[in-house]
Amino acid sequence: MTTFSYAQKVRFRHCDPAGIVFYPRYFEMINETVEEWFAARLQVSFEELHGPMEAAVPTAVIDIVFTAPSRLGEDLEFRLEPTKIGGSSVTLMITAICGAQQRLKMNSTLVFIDQHTGRPQRWPDNIRTRLEHEINKPVNDNA
Amino acid sequence: MTTFSYAQKVRFRHCDPAGIVFYPRYFEMINETVEEWFAARLQVSFEELHGPMEAAVPTAVIDIVFTAPSRLGEDLEFRLEPTKIGGSSVTLMITAICGAQQRLKMNSTLVFIDQHTGRPQRWPDNIRTRLEHEINKPVNDNA
Amino acid sequence: MTTFSYAQKVRFRHCDPAGIVFYPRYFEMINETVEEWFAARLQVSFEELHGPMEAAVPTAVIDIVFTAPSRLGEDLEFRLEPTKIGGSSVTLMITAICGAQQRLKMNSTLVFIDQHTGRPQRWPDNIRTRLEHEINKPVNDNA
Amino acid sequence: MTTFSYAQKVRFRHCDPAGIVFYPRYFEMINETVEEWFAARLQVSFEELHGPMEAAVPTAVIDIVFTAPSRLGEDLEFRLEPTKIGGSSVTLMITAICGAQQRLKMNSTLVFIDQHTGRPQRWPDNIRTRLEHEINKPVNDNA
Repeated sequence: MTTFSYAQKVRFRHCDPAGIVFYPRYFEMINETVEEWFAARLQVSFEELHGPMEAAVPTAVIDIVFTAPSRLGEDLEFRLEPTKIGGSSVTLMITAICGAQQRLKMNSTLVFIDQHTGRPQRWPDNIRTRLEHEINKPVNDNA
Repeated sequence: MTTFSYAQKVRFRHCDPAGIVFYPRYFEMINETVEEWFAARLQVSFEELHGPMEAAVPTAVIDIVFTAPSRLGEDLEFRLEPTKIGGSSVTLMITAICGAQQRLKMNSTLVFIDQHTGRPQRWPDNIRTRLEHEINKPVNDNA
Repeated sequence: MTTFSYAQKVRFRHCDPAGIVFYPRYFEMINETVEEWFAARLQVSFEELHGPMEAAVPTAVIDIVFTAPSRLGEDLEFRLEPTKIGGSSVTLMITAICGAQQRLKMNSTLVFIDQHTGRPQRWPDNIRTRLEHEINKPVNDNA
Repeated sequence: MTTFSYAQKVRFRHCDPAGIVFYPRYFEMINETVEEWFAARLQVSFEELHGPMEAAVPTAVIDIVFTAPSRLGEDLEFRLEPTKIGGSSVTLMITAICGAQQRLKMNSTLVFIDQHTGRPQRWPDNIRTRLEHEINKPVNDNA
């Protein structure tokens, strides 16, 4: 599988008095990237997931480095790839670049939970299959 | 010095369709905690810092674990203490608790920059002195 | 009854690249004011209202004038008073001032609905009684 | 001229614990619509306007009716047309629809100001020409 790529422009609402993206707003952009990735690659939309499936995918862990600031009007490319699948979790590596310059690099872990109990539950088989497909281990990979 | 403590209630705006705090909103709460700490302990307000001082303190690195969800109406206590001072940076440890339960634990590094060049600059002496005071070196520390 | 008053400081998150409050953020401040007013004067918290009461109070109509900009670090005072009570609605007049200067003046109408059907429902008697008390009928009012 | 149309999906970040768009988030969607309209129809981007032009276009007045709630995952179409041009202002009519259903209808007035003085300034000629073109007076209109 190829890395998932999603374009987002830096909007007025994202920027702070210093004229650069206010970092909590990056996480809104990142969440939108994750939503798009779920719909496009795992074939489950956030409305299905939070509605009929009565689930949720809260973020449990984030490690992020902001490597350069982003300014109003810039076109960012967010890239997302899963790096590890657990029984009820997935670890994602997400970067954002503007042209050749990296703006942030993040590793985060999401947990698939039951919306009512708040407890982790195993990925449904169809989602797990697609997650594994995304991880893209070559068939002969001995690692 | 004692740890800085700052109370914030979980508001309607913080909560997502699952009824819990949407994690980008935690970073807004955390930023407000940092603003209050700067004003109370470093004796420099964000309006002075971004105005007359023509500086900024962007966040460069974050490691965070969300240990339990927070719900509408809950009273959170944010605790902040600096753990490391660099020439133009500071590392903070921030936790949020609700009663006896921890909700998140974060280490983040802020950099003191020139607002116009975007380049790191050394902490002014008065701020550095207060930062060192916050780190709480024991009286007999020879380091 | 006296007008309800609630103080809020202009935070970094509220401000845009022009250094003034980004107007969608005013509505977050206004919503917090409404939450506090419900809890303080109508004696029903938003968590009770959206939880056990299975209700919601969406905003149906807003007329607002922004009379002067607000800047980072300013202390705003929000004032709220109900001006009209309907069977399942209430009209509020909200202003924000900084010192002697008005920053905004708003009239808005909220509707009390059933969270599941989304349909208006009559105010419960205890809330209606407190709403009427807030409207401040003069002692000799024959209405 | 045709009405300007801009599509936006309802994202997780827009939704509240009742599962519908939190109204301050609508204003972020509306502001994005205005940004896109400025770039597409007035041929001036928000980064040019707030950067080299040292201007800003704060919103001075809003009248809005929220006619039906919007839910996670819905595709909204925002429609914008200017209805009145002043020396340094413009009044916009904005609606959002989902399929055949209207979700909101707003009239707002923006003012073109000098970013430093905060005072209204006359629209530059090239922007005024395009604004007038957008208002779309038919050639033989005698009104």
